[in-house]
This record gives sequence, C-alpha cells and structure tokens, in this order.
Amino acid sequence: MDIKNKNIKELEQVAQDIRDRIIDVVSRNGGHFSSTLGAVELTIGMHKVFDCEFDPFIFDVSHQCYPHKLITSRWEEFETLRQFNGISGFTKPKESKADYFVAGHSSTSISLAVGAAKAAQLEQNGKVPVVMIGDGSMSAGMVYEALNELGDIKLPVVIILNDNEMSIAKPIGAISKHLSKVLAGKGYQKFKDRVDKFIKNNMPEGATYIAKRMEESLKLITPGIIFEEMGIDYIGPIDGHDIAEVIDTLELAKNFGKPVIVHARTVKGKGYKVAEGQHEHWHGVGPFDVETGEFQKKVDVKSATAVFSDALYKLAVEDEKVVGVTAAMPSGTGMDKLMSAFPNRFWDVAIAEQHAVTSMAAMAKDGFKPFVTIYSTFLQRGFDQIIHDVCLMNLPVTFAIDRAGIVGADGETHQGQFDISFLRFLPNMTLCAPRDSKTLEYSLEFAKDYISPCAIRYPRGAFAELEYTPTKFELGKGEVLKQTSSQIVFIGYGAGVSRAIATEKLHKDDITIVDLRFVKPLDEELLKELAKTTKKWYIFSDSQRQGGVGSALLEFISQNDLDIKVKSFEYDDIYIQHGDTKLLEEDLGILPEQLITKIQIDPSI
Amino acid sequence: MDIKNKNIKELEQVAQDIRDRIIDVVSRNGGHFSSTLGAVELTIGMHKVFDCEFDPFIFDVSHQCYPHKLITSRWEEFETLRQFNGISGFTKPKESKADYFVAGHSSTSISLAVGAAKAAQLEQNGKVPVVMIGDGSMSAGMVYEALNELGDIKLPVVIILNDNEMSIAKPIGAISKHLSKVLAGKGYQKFKDRVDKFIKNNMPEGATYIAKRMEESLKLITPGIIFEEMGIDYIGPIDGHDIAEVIDTLELAKNFGKPVIVHARTVKGKGYKVAEGQHEHWHGVGPFDVETGEFQKKVDVKSATAVFSDALYKLAVEDEKVVGVTAAMPSGTGMDKLMSAFPNRFWDVAIAEQHAVTSMAAMAKDGFKPFVTIYSTFLQRGFDQIIHDVCLMNLPVTFAIDRAGIVGADGETHQGQFDISFLRFLPNMTLCAPRDSKTLEYSLEFAKDYISPCAIRYPRGAFAELEYTPTKFELGKGEVLKQTSSQIVFIGYGAGVSRAIATEKLHKDDITIVDLRFVKPLDEELLKELAKTTKKWYIFSDSQRQGGVGSALLEFISQNDLDIKVKSFEYDDIYIQHGDTKLLEEDLGILPEQLITKIQIDPSI
Repeated sequence: MDIKNKNIKELEQVAQDIRDRIIDVVSRNGGHFSSTLGAVELTIGMHKVFDCEFDPFIFDVSHQCYPHKLITSRWEEFETLRQFNGISGFTKPKESKADYFVAGHSSTSISLAVGAAKAAQLEQNGKVPVVMIGDGSMSAGMVYEALNELGDIKLPVVIILNDNEMSIAKPIGAISKHLSKVLAGKGYQKFKDRVDKFIKNNMPEGATYIAKRMEESLKLITPGIIFEEMGIDYIGPIDGHDIAEVIDTLELAKNFGKPVIVHARTVKGKGYKVAEGQHEHWHGVGPFDVETGEFQKKVDVKSATAVFSDALYKLAVEDEKVVGVTAAMPSGTGMDKLMSAFPNRFWDVAIAEQHAVTSMAAMAKDGFKPFVTIYSTFLQRGFDQIIHDVCLMNLPVTFAIDRAGIVGADGETHQGQFDISFLRFLPNMTLCAPRDSKTLEYSLEFAKDYISPCAIRYPRGAFAELEYTPTKFELGKGEVLKQTSSQIVFIGYGAGVSRAIATEKLHKDDITIVDLRFVKPLDEELLKELAKTTKKWYIFSDSQRQGGVGSALLEFISQNDLDIKVKSFEYDDIYIQHGDTKLLEEDLGILPEQLITKIQIDPSI
Repeated sequence: MDIKNKNIKELEQVAQDIRDRIIDVVSRNGGHFSSTLGAVELTIGMHKVFDCEFDPFIFDVSHQCYPHKLITSRWEEFETLRQFNGISGFTKPKESKADYFVAGHSSTSISLAVGAAKAAQLEQNGKVPVVMIGDGSMSAGMVYEALNELGDIKLPVVIILNDNEMSIAKPIGAISKHLSKVLAGKGYQKFKDRVDKFIKNNMPEGATYIAKRMEESLKLITPGIIFEEMGIDYIGPIDGHDIAEVIDTLELAKNFGKPVIVHARTVKGKGYKVAEGQHEHWHGVGPFDVETGEFQKKVDVKSATAVFSDALYKLAVEDEKVVGVTAAMPSGTGMDKLMSAFPNRFWDVAIAEQHAVTSMAAMAKDGFKPFVTIYSTFLQRGFDQIIHDVCLMNLPVTFAIDRAGIVGADGETHQGQFDISFLRFLPNMTLCAPRDSKTLEYSLEFAKDYISPCAIRYPRGAFAELEYTPTKFELGKGEVLKQTSSQIVFIGYGAGVSRAIATEKLHKDDITIVDLRFVKPLDEELLKELAKTTKKWYIFSDSQRQGGVGSALLEFISQNDLDIKVKSFEYDDIYIQHGDTKLLEEDLGILPEQLITKIQIDPSI
C-alpha cells in the first residue's frame, strides 16, 4: 500500500480502512484486537517516515502488527488470519520480507534493535531500526539489559513507546506508575519553557552554579527521566492517534543520530467503541458480533485453566500457606480468582518470569507453598531460576504449567512443546501430568504437600472426559487403566492418555493402557512388571520427542537392561505452526486414526 | 563470633583478623579474593545490626561471603575452602543455617528478598531481609524485574549496594555510569541542604508552584534518582569501610519500614595492597605468594579457552563478518583479545545473557556471523532467547560454550552439566564438540560458515592431547578413531573422547572407538553401519545422562528399530558439588579405572 505519497487527510482514510478490515476479520476469525487497533496511526507513521524493506521494523511481541500486515501487501490474505496455512497473528519473515523478525514473546525488541544498529554501523548503510513496544513489555528485565547497552553505545535507534496504560492486564510496577504520572498532553512542555524563562530572568546574581544545577534538574519533571538517566533521549508524550504529530515526531527522531524514545499515548481498542477502555477482556478475542460486541457462545465445557483455578482456590482456602504468582496472565492462568480472594497471597508480578520464579523460591524456603503459574512457553524465561534457585535448593515450589502442548492459533512462538524436555533432567525435580479434570485436582493436592519441586502440565482448552475413574496421586505411581494380555502397551502421559484411549478403541485387539502420571520419577515397579510380559511400548504425549516421555522410558530401559522396544508418538523436531489444533495434529500425523495405521503396520513386533 | 557486643574499635580489629585469615587461606587454596576483601566492614555491619539466623541475609552471587562465613562459626573449617568435601566458596544452607540461600549466579538477590519480605509480612514476624549486591550485578534484567515489584509493594527490605566500580570486568552500561557520577563523599548532601535553603529564602512570592516542583526535581542531583523513580528510597553514598558509618546507616535503614537502598562505596581488594585497584586480575585467583603477590606458576599447557580465543581471532582477521559477544566474562572466555583487536565487532554487554543472545540474533539476520561466548552454566539465562530468537528464526549464531562439564572448585552453581540436555531438543539447532585443541579450531571453522544455529562445547582448563590426527569438521559426521572387530563400541563426545581412549587402553581387548563429534544431527550412516556388526555402545561424555548423548543414541536406535544396547557413563541425576575435578569424577565413578571395571562385569553382553 502506498503510504509515502499520501497526505494527512488520505492517511486518516487509510487508518479508517485498516480499522474496518481488522474489525471485520477479527470478528470472524478471532485474534488480537485492542492493541492492534490502538497502533494504527503509529504504524502508518512508521511507514511514512521509514522504509520497512530497508530499515528494520521491530514490533515487540508483535500482536499489534495487523496494521503493518495490511499495509504490506497482505490485505486479501488477511482473510486467513491465524488459520492453518494462513496469515500468522505475529510478524513472520517467511510470510513477507516486510517482516524483520518473528516475535511472540515480549520484550525482545530493543535487543534486536541493538543488534540491527550494530550491523548498520558496521555496514555504514544508514539503516535506522525502529521499534514499537507497549508499556506492558517494559516490565521484563530483558528490556532493561538492552536499554543499558543502548544508552552506552548510543547508536541510532527509534523506540516508539506505545503507552496504552494497560499491557494485557493491569500494569504493575514502578515503570508503569512512572508513565502514569505523565502530565497530560503538551502541557508539561509549556510548563518547562515557563520555568526555563523564570530561571533566566529571576535568578539572583552569583547563583549561577545553583541555577545551572537546577536547569539540569528540571529534567525530572519530564516523564522521560528514567530513560534520560540511562543515556537515551526522550520525546513526548505525543498523541499516538494524531497522524500529523506522529509523522512530525518520527521525522525528528529518525534524524537524531542517537537512540531516542518517542512516548506516544494511545487508546487500546481505538475506533471500536465497545472495546475502548476495556482492558484484558478485548486483548485477544474469539469471534464476536460487530454490532453488539457480543462474543459467540462457546460450548459450555470447563477449561483445564478453570479446573485449576477452582481447585487451587479450594486448596488456598484450606491451607493459608498456599501462595502463588502469575506473570501478567491473571485471567489466562485463572489466577485472577485467587488474586481477588487473597490479595496478600497471590501476586501478578507483570512480565517478569525470572523474578516470579525466584521470589517464590524464597517463600518456599520460608515455609510457604508457592504455586508458580506460567504458560509452558513463557516458563522458558525462568529456566535458570528453576535450576539455580528452586531445584538446587530442593524447595517445594509447584510449577503449574498451563498451555502445555499445541496451543492452536497463536502458533510457533507459543506452543507448549518443550517443558518436559527442559525440566526432566533437573535434579530434585518431579514431573507429573493429569489426564482429565479430576486428576488435575488430584495432582494439585499431591503437589501442595510435596516436599520438593514439582511441575504439573495441562493443556489449553478442555480435557477430554474419560470413562476411567481415577485414584489419588502418589509420588511416582502410574495407573493401569486397562489390563490385557497384549504384548504391546499404550503408555499415555497427560492429555496424551486420551489419545492412547482413542487409539486403542480403533485397534483390532484389546491393548493394555497405562497412564504414566509421573515422567519423573518413573513408576519403576510398574514398568518392570510390564516388561516381563510385553515387548513394545507406544508413547502418547503432547511434547517434544527429543528429551521427552519416550526418552525417559528409553533411558529407564537402558539403565535396567530390559528388552523392550519403544515407539514415541510425540512431536517431531520442528517448530509447530499456527492453526486449528486438530489440523496441526493431523499435520504431525498423531490423530488416533493416523496412529492406528502406523501401529498396525509396525514391522518391529 | 560475637559481633553484637563489640565496640567500633574491637570491630575494626575483627575486620583486620578476617582480612588476615582470608589472605592466608586464599593465597594457599585460591578463591574469590578482591570482592570479598572489599566487603568485610559491610558484612560486620550487617551482623551488628541484623541477626542472620532471623533476618534473611542474602548475598548476591555470594562470592563476597567469606567474611560472613568466618563470622558464623566457620573460622577453622575455612581452611578447606573450595576443596572437595570442604567449605564452599558460596553461601550454602547445607553448610550452615546462617546461610539463607545458595547463590553463584548473579542478580537473584532482590527477587529472593521480595519473596522473603512477602513471607515476613504474612507471618508478621518482623524479619527484615538484607541484601548485599555489587554494582556489577545490577546490569542483569532480573534485578530490574525485582526492583519493579519491590517499588510497587514497598515491603521492608534493606539493599546494600556494594559499589566497587568494577564488577568482574569493566562496568558497562547506563547504571554503572550513573553510579560513577556520584559526587564525592558527603559533599552532595551539604550541597542539597544549601540549595534547599536557597529556595526557601530567595524564591520570589507567587512562584510557590514552581518552587515546589523544583524542590522535587532536586532529587536529580542525588545519585539515587533511578531508584527513587522506581519507588525505592535511597541513602548514600557512604564509606563502606567506615564501620561506624556503616552501622549507623544500617540501623537507620532497618527501621525504614519500606525498601531502601544503602549505597556504599568500597575498594576491591581493600587491605591487600597488591590487589587494591587491580580489577579482573584479582577477582578469582589461584594460590599466590602473600609477600610478593606473585601467582604460583601453572604448568604451561594452553587452555581450551586460549585455543578458542586464538582460533576465533584468526577467523575474525580473515572474515570481517565475524562478530561476537561476551556477558561480563571477557578474559574468562578469551574474548578480551578480540575486543581489543576489533573494538567495533566484539562486545561485552555486562551480565545480560538474554540481551547478548537476542542482539546477536539480529546481527545474524543482517548478514553477520556472530559468536556468542558464554559459560555453559550462564547460558541457561539466555534459554528462551535461543529458542525464540535464534532457533525459531534459524539464524547462523554460534554458541561457543566454555566451561562445559565439571568446573571444579566453583561447584554446584557453576557446573556445565546441562547444556546438551537443554539444547538438543531445539529444532534447527546443531550441536558439536571438539575432543582436543585442533578439533576445537576445526569446529569453529565449521561453525563460521554454517547456515544455522550451532553450539560448540569445550571444557574448563586444557584438553588432553590425543594421538589421533583429526580430519576437518563436516556437518553430522563422526570419526572412527579405532576400528576393530569388537562387538562393543566406545562412543565419546567432546572431552569424553579422551576418557573413552583412556578406558580402552585398560581393556583386555581392542575396542572400536568413535568420536561422535555431532550429537545433533547424528551421523546416521556411521551409526547404522556400526549397528550391523556391534551389540553394545558405551557412551562417554561430560554431560547429564538424562537428555544427554546417550539419550540421543537411544532415540536414534528406537526410531530406526535397531538392536543395540546402550550404557551411558554421563553424569548422574544430581547437582555435582565443588572440589578438584578428578575427585569429583571419582565420586561419580567415571574415572577410566572405575569404568573399565563396570564394563568388564557388565552382564548384558
């Protein structure tokens, strides 16, 4: 789309067209909504002033990138937003060379800009990286690490701070409060001018030194003080919906020759009345009615998240030592219920997974029973803290890992593929998984009183409800769901159990089915017993094959010199794309009707 | 040791005694030196004002904890510092209840304090967590995440910022510069008073609003502005070697009832003239002569780090696209040589592993060939960035992983146990390892021109030099070092190859020896060929067994329905303690003379 040659009036029309298109498609496909509506004018400004195939355009988290996609030749394809083989909800270089980087996790943008700026300097090509980052992303430590270097090396980078005062949930922490203190509009600039004049005209003779100090110190009343203290210039705040102001300011910033933050105030959901001023509710949405703003009714099945939330609530009522934390996902993880019931025992620490994990390690040391509730994909951010602060200390911190396995439309940056592989080799760690709602409750009961680190994984959406009545959880104990005389065994883990059951139903023979429950420690007694009468174990689990459940069993078999063949139906060694979960599973060849074919032609038994 | 009932003069004598003891023991055992000498008076102050078995004493990184150990009943045992089964160089609750937490990685302390403060609030027990953190640790994002919440919840925590202006290497980044700007001594406070008075007396009538603003803005000229902006009170700077001043200030801070930073200026190496003002050189030392400050001569064998440094230097001379980064370990990683030769292409980004990884991802995207050089244990801090910014984008970033395997005296927080297990399951990742100096050069040559992410691991200290002349590296190709007709095979990886060779020499028969070289992708052709004539593979690698090299082979065997038994001599599922590497290996039972016994009694073949 031509942006460069349009005047302000025409660009305002472009903004309107983009909004209409986003509202139309998202109301049908679902997707990120309010953040992307709030970023329309800023994105138009970026394209007017910079060139996205020359200057690196870096969208933090990139859930606000829909206007960018519409501007860069994806107007029609946008119809397929977040669908299997369709347009991704995030920037994606494979989709368009207008997209510089993949981003789905927050707070990577300034580090990318530092790297891009170093490259531009070495190449002497005059590229200026331009970043768009929301205030919510400012809470992660990674941003601070990057600003720290940027303020030191002072290479040209333009950072548009898209301040919509909310991030996904309520903004937390000092930076957010700081931004909220901003004086409205341009008022503070006029004020600053007045003060400058006042000092010039009214300072008594002989007080020059003090006057100079004061002039310096006036920076304090600008909202950019934190950034300026870090060595990064600051312009703002500007009205992020005033296209002319946005363009003028970005022109200025582009020519600064050093790092500069442009602080733009925007309204989330801008242009769709129902969503304006609504916070977490309209961040990521399913299909809705454009006229009324009502969401399509979902089938009334209780999600694993809701089961978790209710069960943890019950435990927290019974035991005042139960505490917990979420990292900017209170409603996504179901922790909102606990935070409002027990505001002194459950915290949202903002996007700060490292801090979330380690702060709860200290609480465990001091006798509490902390639940760290983070999506599988985001727990990767707290990895060293799990190793160094929780497992090494052997502290009873429970990791409640939501969104384990395929998450669907968010896609490759958000899949919960890796948690088993990155936790299983940690000394002192226990790993278990429920197969359905009831066992999720049981696993939480188990973890609450367990004396060491424990990680429980459960999927996005609802569990399949199964016909097997479960027993309570006991450390390292699996459950035989169906005992037969077959030489093969279907071993399921977590949500994989339901796939094992469904596959068994398709098999011509009756097959023994085991719910492994614990992938660490394994149920050695049960497995050794099974090994006496069976020859081949098929593994069903929503996890990466390498280092996953199958590997755990192979290691066990090898250590114990057993004579068992293993075939794992876990995920292949790829990043799994976005789209409907069932289509993705079909693509991976792990639907029951696909697996049964593989099993029945398996030559190895 | 009784601190509470001693007067200032007596405490000054205690400080002298502690210094003497540290100099004596470290000069014989080696250990952390200048940071711990700099923290003597601050530690005495902590013990005078707080109670370490009541208030959580939190030492960031904890390499400055020797005075604390000496004060808390470990004077005699200190003789065994950093020796196998002796006193750890870091805080360790298993060693003493005076030690609140293990710490060896930096920047966890404020998160721990936040957790401890929440626990204290819920228990209403009046405990006040007290943190000692160096200016070098302030660069990691985790600190910022924690300060962000602390400034929000405002629970009582005393943070002693031990500002010795250097961290391990040169301080980098905005915070360090900021601290350097501090006006000397108490001068700035007097200045502030003068300005306050001036405003009061000289402001013309009617300018009250402006005067008020100005008064607020005076905070700017205090060095604590960044912290105060984050909602945390600030006192200082004080002289961190003046015991009376330290005690008075900590008394004040303890009773603040909210978070406060006490900024103390100290001199690294204080009290040992040779080390004062010397920076990285005296941070961690081997045995030395107390009189002359001369280090004991080491056997003149070139370390793997030095081989890496020279080899990368050569590549950087030949190819101007080669760039690289270290995270606060320029000399430890050998990157110092490259930074001084190519100051525009090699960077030390301070303790900021997340940012280090992602900034280099952008450089790779822009056509450069970045080498990210981080110790195995610290690379855990950049885990999500490897997944989300490097591997998902499939970018040619090379991870040069120093200190892989057992690192010796630093112990459990620093062992390079996990890197294979946490990298192997990542899509698009290639993993290889050299067995000696020459193959390290070859692996770097390979990685430089490779088109995808690649991780190369090598050990602390020097490689064993081996009798086999290597070939160049080729993607996914192993090397048969010794071909025999044995039914068993010794498969080595990295430094494990020399152990395989040494073990083979002890075997009564000639055994086939393979240098695997690549654990991802595996040399499928070679392995399938081996499988035709052999029955059992023994795995030698300095890595965690779970998810490690043996697992990779088990997965391969399972996928390909081969009939091979595997026994892995990798590390057990424990955190490996500190001490001499050979003693630790003996403890694990992986010395060649131990392994040969296991192999010769192995009943499974």
